[in-house]
Amino acid sequence: MLIIGIDPGLAIVGYSLVKKEGNRFSVLDYGVVRTPSSDDNINRLKKIYISLTDIIKEYKPDEMAVEELFFNKNVKTAIRVGQARGVILLAGAQADIVVAEYTPLQVKQAVVGYGRAAKQQVQEMVKALLNLETVPRPDDAADALAVAICHGNSQGINSML
Amino acid sequence: MLIIGIDPGLAIVGYSLVKKEGNRFSVLDYGVVRTPSSDDNINRLKKIYISLTDIIKEYKPDEMAVEELFFNKNVKTAIRVGQARGVILLAGAQADIVVAEYTPLQVKQAVVGYGRAAKQQVQEMVKALLNLETVPRPDDAADALAVAICHGNSQGINSML
Repeated sequence: MLIIGIDPGLAIVGYSLVKKEGNRFSVLDYGVVRTPSSDDNINRLKKIYISLTDIIKEYKPDEMAVEELFFNKNVKTAIRVGQARGVILLAGAQADIVVAEYTPLQVKQAVVGYGRAAKQQVQEMVKALLNLETVPRPDDAADALAVAICHGNSQGINSML
Repeated sequence: MLIIGIDPGLAIVGYSLVKKEGNRFSVLDYGVVRTPSSDDNINRLKKIYISLTDIIKEYKPDEMAVEELFFNKNVKTAIRVGQARGVILLAGAQADIVVAEYTPLQVKQAVVGYGRAAKQQVQEMVKALLNLETVPRPDDAADALAVAICHGNSQGINSML
């Protein structure tokens, strides 16, 4: 099964393509989509949607795993990043693939076995589980790899379709 | 100029098609798109995007006016409704039409001339300006008509593209 993992955002969206065969994971690709803050809001949303749609068309993943947003208080930021997450979910829905959503807690629990694990611990586990030579950079790409592993380890449980 | 006005939401999206010729407004259509809360999040976003894309294809508006979201505190709600607003903005962007955004204050100011006007005052003015026989229902459709009038009266000023 090929999983596309997504760490959603407006300025930077992390993505990963992770293959799961039996209990083994392997990485096909990972990276980020950036949208400059100098660009207007509508064009940033469009760029995110088109970039992800292109990545999905290229790799044809079977399922998509998207991390939930976590905000403490800033409602304005929540709306703006929520808008970006909306077009990300739509890119998966339009490709007719299963889209699953996971909280940051679920991702940490699935990757490290501990919901309050530090970011560095998560990244070291991602590196080990995927046989990478170095810790993946930037953080958003590492998070996208982590949510793909999380989905691979909880297959079907959180499927949203 | 044909304007599509949108009052964004997840459970209910108001839309309106308002023509402006000189200083005269006329209504082509208005209504709402509803998504049941029993449906999953991904399908609700997809339904909103597809419905608006269909409406845009049918009427071919020249410009789109979308009301800004206003939330005091609930961040979870802000993210969910932000996601819906994201796919609404995308529907306009994908149709290559100008997309403008207005705050509730701007809409009230443009329609009633007073930013703190009551909902009922706004609806009465919408009815009068558009020569409607009754106040448009539901509220979301009336708000969509109001934001279209607001855009017609401030043409170009808040254009986002």
